[in-house]
Amino acid sequence: MTQHREIRLSGSGGQGLQLSARILAQVFINAGAHVAQSQSYEPTSRGGMSRSDLVIDAGTPDYPLAAALDILLILDECAAGASDDILGKGALVLVDSERVKTVPENSAALPLIRKARELGNIRVANIIALGAINALAEFCSMEELENAVRGTVPARFLDLNLEALAAGYEMARHDGELKSA
Amino acid sequence: MTQHREIRLSGSGGQGLQLSARILAQVFINAGAHVAQSQSYEPTSRGGMSRSDLVIDAGTPDYPLAAALDILLILDECAAGASDDILGKGALVLVDSERVKTVPENSAALPLIRKARELGNIRVANIIALGAINALAEFCSMEELENAVRGTVPARFLDLNLEALAAGYEMARHDGELKSA
Repeated sequence: MTQHREIRLSGSGGQGLQLSARILAQVFINAGAHVAQSQSYEPTSRGGMSRSDLVIDAGTPDYPLAAALDILLILDECAAGASDDILGKGALVLVDSERVKTVPENSAALPLIRKARELGNIRVANIIALGAINALAEFCSMEELENAVRGTVPARFLDLNLEALAAGYEMARHDGELKSA
Repeated sequence: MTQHREIRLSGSGGQGLQLSARILAQVFINAGAHVAQSQSYEPTSRGGMSRSDLVIDAGTPDYPLAAALDILLILDECAAGASDDILGKGALVLVDSERVKTVPENSAALPLIRKARELGNIRVANIIALGAINALAEFCSMEELENAVRGTVPARFLDLNLEALAAGYEMARHDGELKSA
């Protein structure tokens, strides 16, 4: 859990990527890692790309900006291509299968936003994505991820978020079984 | 509003510094600036320092990490001294007068946390600090700051936060008058 890892969550503004980055950061901090988080905001006239980066390390990272991503999430086409330059070799890339048309090679594509709509709130697509990423990358137990959600998400949205987390995990596991079948 | 500026809000974990950084970021984005935000999280066993940095620029900042702070807030002694290396010349430094003992030269010291306690919620010290910083640095109108609070803070805490913002502004203005008297 404290090995060096670089994770970028990207999409469009309003998709809750900063919240899901805080949840992920909490998972790694709870396991004793140091986490540097960074994000940038552009004036809305420039389009709505949003991203949040985490650099996880056993100690304070020498260089706190992402330089070779291990994990990349793309939830919207406006963020597609923006991270190609810093994609590490063998990186896990997860994209939303409906919203993202420009898909990097060897990506996993899942209907994350459609699932959020089915759960009744499109804003939990980011949490579904967290569950799916963990099913694919297996960096922690689902219990550790649930604990971080409990410590971060407002109480009245907790049940919905835990449901979203589980839905993402199941979706990605099922997809993995299909592919390897 | 789009000139290059570097701002660090520092203190201990749980003081809401990430939230106040998001509010400040929103002020500058609303004015058309680009904002890079970064923070780091350490395992709690290492002590509770928390910080959030903003680098504001007319375009995408060349280097998105703070290197020469224009404005520094220190809300807790555990963050004192941590930013000395990157304090710009003539920087505005605001510290909590009760919690911070190691005070950089030429700092403004105000009882921000005591005022938060008077308002009934110690967690608004960060918002009081925003009002005070704006009174001292005058980077935007109070209306712009209030608008950013409205767009960021949950509805049920809005009145308290607007009150805190105004209290900080008044406190710093009054303090400035005393000093220049």
